[in-house]
Amino acid sequence: MSLAEQPLDLQGAFHVYDTTLRDGAQQEGLNLSVGDKLAIARLIDELGVGYVEGGWPGANPKDTEFFRRARTELDLKHARLAAFGSTRRAGVAAADDPLVAALRDSGAGTACLVAKSHDRHVELALRTTLAENLAMVRDTVAHLRSEGLEVFVDAEHFFDGFRRNRSYALDVLGAAFEAGAELVALCDTNGGMLPPWVGEIVADVVATTGGRVGIHAHNDTGCAVANSVAAVQAGATHVQGCINGYGERTGNADLVAVVAALELKLERPVLPAGALAEATRIAHAVAEVTNVPPASRQPYVGTSAFAHKAGLHASAIKVDPDLYQHMDPAGVGNDMRLLVSDMAGRASIELKGRELGYDLSVDSPEGKELVTRVTERVKILESRGYTFEAADASFELLLVEEVSGRRPAYVDVESWRVITESRSGGEALSEATVKLHADGTRIVVTGEGNGPVNALDQALRTAMGQAYPEVGRFRLIDYKVRILDQGLGTDAITRVLIETSDGESSWVTVGVGANVVEASWGALLDGVTFGLHRGGVRPVG
Amino acid sequence: MSLAEQPLDLQGAFHVYDTTLRDGAQQEGLNLSVGDKLAIARLIDELGVGYVEGGWPGANPKDTEFFRRARTELDLKHARLAAFGSTRRAGVAAADDPLVAALRDSGAGTACLVAKSHDRHVELALRTTLAENLAMVRDTVAHLRSEGLEVFVDAEHFFDGFRRNRSYALDVLGAAFEAGAELVALCDTNGGMLPPWVGEIVADVVATTGGRVGIHAHNDTGCAVANSVAAVQAGATHVQGCINGYGERTGNADLVAVVAALELKLERPVLPAGALAEATRIAHAVAEVTNVPPASRQPYVGTSAFAHKAGLHASAIKVDPDLYQHMDPAGVGNDMRLLVSDMAGRASIELKGRELGYDLSVDSPEGKELVTRVTERVKILESRGYTFEAADASFELLLVEEVSGRRPAYVDVESWRVITESRSGGEALSEATVKLHADGTRIVVTGEGNGPVNALDQALRTAMGQAYPEVGRFRLIDYKVRILDQGLGTDAITRVLIETSDGESSWVTVGVGANVVEASWGALLDGVTFGLHRGGVRPVG
Repeated sequence: MSLAEQPLDLQGAFHVYDTTLRDGAQQEGLNLSVGDKLAIARLIDELGVGYVEGGWPGANPKDTEFFRRARTELDLKHARLAAFGSTRRAGVAAADDPLVAALRDSGAGTACLVAKSHDRHVELALRTTLAENLAMVRDTVAHLRSEGLEVFVDAEHFFDGFRRNRSYALDVLGAAFEAGAELVALCDTNGGMLPPWVGEIVADVVATTGGRVGIHAHNDTGCAVANSVAAVQAGATHVQGCINGYGERTGNADLVAVVAALELKLERPVLPAGALAEATRIAHAVAEVTNVPPASRQPYVGTSAFAHKAGLHASAIKVDPDLYQHMDPAGVGNDMRLLVSDMAGRASIELKGRELGYDLSVDSPEGKELVTRVTERVKILESRGYTFEAADASFELLLVEEVSGRRPAYVDVESWRVITESRSGGEALSEATVKLHADGTRIVVTGEGNGPVNALDQALRTAMGQAYPEVGRFRLIDYKVRILDQGLGTDAITRVLIETSDGESSWVTVGVGANVVEASWGALLDGVTFGLHRGGVRPVG
Repeated sequence: MSLAEQPLDLQGAFHVYDTTLRDGAQQEGLNLSVGDKLAIARLIDELGVGYVEGGWPGANPKDTEFFRRARTELDLKHARLAAFGSTRRAGVAAADDPLVAALRDSGAGTACLVAKSHDRHVELALRTTLAENLAMVRDTVAHLRSEGLEVFVDAEHFFDGFRRNRSYALDVLGAAFEAGAELVALCDTNGGMLPPWVGEIVADVVATTGGRVGIHAHNDTGCAVANSVAAVQAGATHVQGCINGYGERTGNADLVAVVAALELKLERPVLPAGALAEATRIAHAVAEVTNVPPASRQPYVGTSAFAHKAGLHASAIKVDPDLYQHMDPAGVGNDMRLLVSDMAGRASIELKGRELGYDLSVDSPEGKELVTRVTERVKILESRGYTFEAADASFELLLVEEVSGRRPAYVDVESWRVITESRSGGEALSEATVKLHADGTRIVVTGEGNGPVNALDQALRTAMGQAYPEVGRFRLIDYKVRILDQGLGTDAITRVLIETSDGESSWVTVGVGANVVEASWGALLDGVTFGLHRGGVRPVG
């Protein structure tokens, strides 16, 4: 069995520790609901990290609620859930500090305690003595250990503190280790470090304390990934980061880039075998939840990360792609793209079709012609703002249309209208009227809702349900809207993704338009149409 | 005279070499006109770099035209203009190669020649012999030197080539130096390097060849800045990069971050004194020209780069900003910002108030009580879906309301209504009617638009403009919508952020509601209200 084939103990000799839900959530513009946090925790677990830090129980109602719901709703396959908190307040016993109690009661088996290790921060921010701060670290770690928790300590501002007062910074680590902390993560809280400094200090700490050391880096110098890797090379065996490099200011270390450097560049497996190949999908799925548009230039997982402008490179890429790529993009679940040629596009259309059960083999001239036609349509639609990556159902409808020559349709739409109204400052109400024809019958239905899309959805499903009773089982379960070309005001294009369920499974459709209601209408109608089509329902009349 | 006060020779012992206009322009989605390139060259010159690489004359008409116009239209204060090109083709004399002639005739005093230094690239991409490639380097450098040009050589794929065939890679450098090249820039063309590898190889090359070495890094591992700095620390005296980290795939080394690391972290002046303090302005101005939205998390110059969110930090920031910043943001022309969020404590509300010109000192009991009240309201509103970290204007309206006991209001809203309609599959149209009272007069206005928010905005501004002519200058310039609690379908809460401009400055307001149109209405009304309030307009009647 080679090293790579041995099952890894993700909570063992080396940890990958995700702090997206806590430190990542500090990012400007990022505002996660409890449902969002649970969804992100599940996605990050799929990446195979050892720990998912869920938040700071007791510090705000949302994080408390997260840990409450996590007990029953979060079934992590790989990761252990960790709760973030602080050392006890000055002058009180750890057992009497409600925030420490909240950590104990969070249900997380691991607590990560932030501790001050910079003498001036102790005096100016905590406003206590250096000795009391040491006692706070010692007491809190010992108390939580006695309650049966695994305890990590985040040594805040460690690198700056170490440079200013090495002896005191090491005393803080000593207090943590003596009281039973499993490890101390050295935090470059202000993010001002460069890799050689990090490497030197980590090596010094490992040699001096003999304790287990981790790294928590911020990207203020643009070096968070390099700083994290330098720390690991200097002896750190626990590395923290955030998916998509989320975080306050310039963000935290990008977890995928750090892991990729360790696994692919330094040949040190730190995730379960094959997990890194899911990185692109997971990073993009998390971006859907946070609604922070993914950065196309993001290392490894960005849509441009393996995109090559044709020309100088194109012929050589054909001979040997490795000549122009630092790694095989499949290793992180990404794809090579040639920006001018549609080669890559055709291949993925073919694959996608096969995934959906359509034989789009390009071996026959007809197959090749079909794939070319679908590729062209996808390209045109994507240039108008459509996206088919998430909207499988809309893609399948397009495929059926190209294969059979006709788009599945169950009704003729005469017109639709939505009125949203507010009187005397009262709550706004929406009312939608849909007029359809099915099998020669004219159907007119009015629906109400607390928003235009809600009202339209009610009216459309009721109207179609009169001709197709199967529609009665369909429910709209998710609605996402994104303005494309931000900066152009409301003239910009709106893209709507809608998820429809029949109670057993669900499917996603996409609509695009200058008008948000029109974009929603397209996605709603596709949602119902696809549900009927997939159920094998035949159009009436 | 201290070291920092000595005038630097920007074309002397150390070069900062900008390749935004050549390698940066390879970025997906970046398309520069000749006018754009001239404008960017002027901006980068203001940063005080030693060289601006303008493009590849002869390779495409746009770059040829750029060099033609640069002769008369580009008056660089600091930088020397460089022209990029390639070694001669195999089997022809350098003097007979039209692309080499284009370099000579470009009018640029410096040529930067790309040369293959990776044996397999010579064989597979150039399809020539290793010996002929050496001759191509030697001939082309010697020819351009004899024509009076300063010659730099970009050794393409150098690091990969060096690891595969060290001896041949060094032979290529030797050929360049012998023929009179001023320096050879070692290129991590595929971007797969990590800092220790770069440092080791640069040190080896410097020691072995004794020649002058530069670094050209790409960001595929997220380490381009660290790799560039590692190269300089290992002896490189010429560093290439692009403004905003533009470039193919994941981009090139971010020039500002590299320079900031050298100047601010390693105390090595490489730009004229004071120039780095213009970095934020210049980086944003270039982004205006390229039309690539600036990344808020970009190190040093991003709008979030010095933004602080956590309430935990805010109290200490008050005492000493240096405790929570790795540098003074003024050093790169950026500013500290405090974000108001559900994690905000009283201290950040106080600081935010001061930033907006309100004295919210908590020293007096009244001040303390006010800050507590504002903090509580912010927390309650944020739990309902509001966010104030981006919506400064809505926060200020709230502040005014708490300070004065009354929210600024300019009209009484009787009702509003929006109708969105599509007939026979035609494009949807929206029509909004707004009914207001101002100074005893009832105002009824109907507006049209290509979406409900657009129509509502038209109607609201027209109606309010009848009572307040100042509104005529206001424009909606950005609209963002986000569904909170995704997974609950259209019953979820919608949050809308709207940016309004009066032509001179802009402000952001937030609206929340179960109904997207209602949320937009709130943000639109706040946007107009804030504009009038800030302009000192008094309510009529």
